[in-house]
Amino acid sequence: MMKHYYSISDHQNFKALVDQGILMQQQIQSYDIIGKNKTLIMLFFSPSLRTRISTHKAGLVLGMHVISMNAGDGYQMEFDFGKVMDGNSAEHIKEAAKVISQFGDIIAIRAFPGLQSKEEDLKDQILQGFMKFATVPIVNLESCLHHPLQGLADAITIESTKKITKPKVVLSWAPHIKALPLAVPISFAQAMNAMQYDFTITHPEGHELPSNLVGNVKIEYDQAKALKDADFVYAKSWSSTLNYGQPNKTSNNWIINEEKMNLTANGKFMHCLPIRRNVVATDGVLDSPNSLIYKQAHNRLFAAQAVIFKLLQQNQPF
Amino acid sequence: MMKHYYSISDHQNFKALVDQGILMQQQIQSYDIIGKNKTLIMLFFSPSLRTRISTHKAGLVLGMHVISMNAGDGYQMEFDFGKVMDGNSAEHIKEAAKVISQFGDIIAIRAFPGLQSKEEDLKDQILQGFMKFATVPIVNLESCLHHPLQGLADAITIESTKKITKPKVVLSWAPHIKALPLAVPISFAQAMNAMQYDFTITHPEGHELPSNLVGNVKIEYDQAKALKDADFVYAKSWSSTLNYGQPNKTSNNWIINEEKMNLTANGKFMHCLPIRRNVVATDGVLDSPNSLIYKQAHNRLFAAQAVIFKLLQQNQPF
Amino acid sequence: MMKHYYSISDHQNFKALVDQGILMQQQIQSYDIIGKNKTLIMLFFSPSLRTRISTHKAGLVLGMHVISMNAGDGYQMEFDFGKVMDGNSAEHIKEAAKVISQFGDIIAIRAFPGLQSKEEDLKDQILQGFMKFATVPIVNLESCLHHPLQGLADAITIESTKKITKPKVVLSWAPHIKALPLAVPISFAQAMNAMQYDFTITHPEGHELPSNLVGNVKIEYDQAKALKDADFVYAKSWSSTLNYGQPNKTSNNWIINEEKMNLTANGKFMHCLPIRRNVVATDGVLDSPNSLIYKQAHNRLFAAQAVIFKLLQQNQPF
Repeated sequence: MMKHYYSISDHQNFKALVDQGILMQQQIQSYDIIGKNKTLIMLFFSPSLRTRISTHKAGLVLGMHVISMNAGDGYQMEFDFGKVMDGNSAEHIKEAAKVISQFGDIIAIRAFPGLQSKEEDLKDQILQGFMKFATVPIVNLESCLHHPLQGLADAITIESTKKITKPKVVLSWAPHIKALPLAVPISFAQAMNAMQYDFTITHPEGHELPSNLVGNVKIEYDQAKALKDADFVYAKSWSSTLNYGQPNKTSNNWIINEEKMNLTANGKFMHCLPIRRNVVATDGVLDSPNSLIYKQAHNRLFAAQAVIFKLLQQNQPF
Repeated sequence: MMKHYYSISDHQNFKALVDQGILMQQQIQSYDIIGKNKTLIMLFFSPSLRTRISTHKAGLVLGMHVISMNAGDGYQMEFDFGKVMDGNSAEHIKEAAKVISQFGDIIAIRAFPGLQSKEEDLKDQILQGFMKFATVPIVNLESCLHHPLQGLADAITIESTKKITKPKVVLSWAPHIKALPLAVPISFAQAMNAMQYDFTITHPEGHELPSNLVGNVKIEYDQAKALKDADFVYAKSWSSTLNYGQPNKTSNNWIINEEKMNLTANGKFMHCLPIRRNVVATDGVLDSPNSLIYKQAHNRLFAAQAVIFKLLQQNQPF
Repeated sequence: MMKHYYSISDHQNFKALVDQGILMQQQIQSYDIIGKNKTLIMLFFSPSLRTRISTHKAGLVLGMHVISMNAGDGYQMEFDFGKVMDGNSAEHIKEAAKVISQFGDIIAIRAFPGLQSKEEDLKDQILQGFMKFATVPIVNLESCLHHPLQGLADAITIESTKKITKPKVVLSWAPHIKALPLAVPISFAQAMNAMQYDFTITHPEGHELPSNLVGNVKIEYDQAKALKDADFVYAKSWSSTLNYGQPNKTSNNWIINEEKMNLTANGKFMHCLPIRRNVVATDGVLDSPNSLIYKQAHNRLFAAQAVIFKLLQQNQPF
C-alpha cells in the first residue's frame, strides 16, 4: 500500500513499480478506464519541461482529467504554525493542501530547494506540508531531497537495457556553473540500492550525500578507478554538502568525455536532462550510440504512468 | 433565463441555483453529456487557486473541453472607445471578447480591482466590457464588485448545514494588512438577502458597503452585539469605502477568536479563503469543529457546476 | 506529404488545405476519432491569444490530448552547436526537441523574432532547430518569418467570401508605434500567390519583403493607386527591412480609413488582430459591415483543424 509517492525508499516493493513501468513501455493505450472521472492536479513551484509534459500525459493516458498550474498563479504560501500571518504569505499550506485535496484524486507537486540553507532544504517543507495535510496521495515531481519519478525512470532504463543481472552502475559527480540540488543523486542512489545492482558513487571530497538517505553506499573518490568496467555511467552535478549552495569551481576535470568512457565496459551513458553540453559531458559522449539520455527521458512517461496507475488501483472501490 | 453569471442579484431565482448545487453535491458524475463538444474558456487577469481549479474541474465534470489561460499570456487590453491606440495596449476588449466568443461556449473571467480609485473600480470595466461584446455567456470568477460563485458556494454551505429555516447569519468585517476588494462581502450580502435569512453586517464605521448593491441591510457597529446568538459567522476583510484602498490599521481588535465565537449560538465559522491565520481569525477558530472553511471551499466545485449546468441547459437545442 | 507545417510555400497543394478548412467551417464535430490517443503539445516562447485558444481547441475537436505550456515554464535554451554551455542556457534545443517528440504526436511552437538583428531573425532558429531535431511534425504558430496558420485562415476567409474567381487583393502596409515582425505579411503573400489571386502589395519604400520568400510580387508604392478597385484590403504593419527593427514614424498617413476604402470596389477589410484601433485602421472601417476581422479570427480555428487533420491523416496506420 503506497500512501504517497514521495521517495523511492518509502516503497518496500520498488521492483514492482519498475516492472509496471516496463509493462507500460510496451503498450501505452489500454489503461484509460482506471482514471475515468478521476482528477490529477499538478502544482509547480519550480520550472519543468520533461516532468510537466510526461506527468500530464501520463494522467491523460490513464483516462484522468488533468489540471496543471504554476503555484505563482495562486497565492504565496505560509508553512509555519501558530504564526500571525501579517507578512507576504496570504495562504497557509494547511488550507491549500486540504482544499486541493477536495478537487483532486492525486496531487503532484514540484518544489526545488532554495540552496541557501541546508537546514531549511533538509526540511523539504512544501512536500512535507502537503503530505501532512492532504487527504489524497501526493506525487513528488522533485522536491528539495527527492526526484523519485526520475529515479524510477532511471531504474526502468537500466533494467530494460542491461545485459547482465547485476550490472556495475557508477554515479559520477559532474562540474556545473551553479550549485545544484541533491534530489536526483539521492533518488538514483535509492533506486540502485533497491535494485541491488553493483553500485558506486564517485565525487570530489565534500560532496558526500546524506547517509541517512542513501545508506551505506560504496564511495570511490578516484573517478578513473570508479569508472573502470562500468556498465552504466550516470553523470550528475550536485552541491557540496560541506559548502552547501556554493558552486565547486575547482573540479572541472570531472567532466565525462570519450576518453573516460573508454575506461568502462562499453558502458552506457546516462543523465536526467537538462544537461549543459561540454560542461557535464562532451558532445561526443552525449551523441554516441551508447548514450541513453533520450531513452531515459522517454521512460519518464512510463514511470509516471506506473506510479499513477498503482495509486489509482489501490484507491479503486471493490 | 440567465444571460451571464455576473452578480447574484441578477437572478430572480437564486434559490434554484442553490438547490442545483446541493443536487450536485450528492452525485457528481452523471452530468457529462450536457457539455459534450462545448468549450469553457477561462481567462485570468488575477491570481487564483480555488476558483481556477474548481471551475476548471466543473467544466470537465460536465463533459466540456476546458482551455485556461492567464490574460498576461496574451496582449494588454484597451477599454476606452474611439481612442487612438498608440499606448501600451495592443488589443481592444471588443476584439478580445468577440474573438474568444467564437471559440468558447462559455467564457469565465477573473479580474480584481486596482484598489487605487473607487470610481474606476465601480465601473468593473473588464467584466462589463466582456459582457457588452461577448456573444456567449460570461461567468464572473471575481471582478471588482462581485464574486458570485463564492456567494453561491456560501449559500449552498449554509443551506445544507443549517438547523433552522431562517438562521441568524452575521458578516463580520476582519482586520488585514492590506485593503481588500468588496466583491466577496457584496456577493455574500446579496446571497443572504436572496435566501431571506436573518442577516446582519458588522463593521467599523467607514466600511459601509455600497447600498445600491447590498440593499437595505441591517448594520450593527458593535461586533459583540452583532455576534450574539449567531448561527453562522462569516469573517471577511474589505476596504474602507471612505478611505478607499487604504488599509485600516486601527481595528485589529475585530479578529474573530474563540471568546467571540462563545457569544454565538454555537455558531459555525465561515471564510472564503485564502485566510491569514491569527490576523482575520485565530487558529483556534479555524481549526475548531465548528469551522466550515473547507466545506465552503469544496462547495465552490458544486457552485461552479450548478452555474455552468444551468447555462448549458438553456443553450441546448430542443 | 507534409512533414512540418512551417511555411505556406512548403506545400505543393495549399489549395487542398484551404478546401479542407472550408469543409471544417461547415461541420466541426465529426472528426474526433482521428486524434484519439494522440497528443498535441503547444509551446509558447511569445504571447498568444487567438492562436493559443484556436489551436488548443482544434486539437480537442479532433479528439487529441492537448498539453499547452509557456517555454518560460521550462529552461532557457541554447541553439549553438559545439558550445561549452556555461552561460544562462540550461538546455540545448536538441534535447528539448528530441524529448518533447517522445511525448507528443505533433508539436506546435510560437517564437517571435527579437527584431534586434535581421541576420539573427532570418535564421528563425527556434523553429528551424525544432524541425531539425524533432521526430514528429512541427506546426509553426508564428515564427520570425512565417505565420502559416494565419495565412491559411486568411485564404479560407477570402475563398469563402469572394464573389469572383480571381479577386483583386491588396496588402497595405500600416502605421504602428513599434516595428513589427514580417511573418504575417510573408505568409499572406505566399498564400495569395498560391491561390493565384490578383495580388498587389503597397508600402512605403524601405519596407520591401524578402523576395526569396514572397517571390516576384507586384509592388505599388502609391497606396491610392493600389487600393483602386480592390475586392479585399489587408492592412498590416511590418518593420522596415532597411532600418530593421526601427519604427517608421513618418508614414502615419498610411492608416486605412473610410475615404480610402471608398477607392475600392466595395472592398472587404481584413486584419489578423490584435489591431491598434485608429492607428492601423479607423473605428469606422473596423466596425463597418465590410470588415472581415472577426470572420478571419474564427477561421483560425478551421485553419488549425485542417492542418492538424492533414498531419494526423498521413500519420495514420493503414
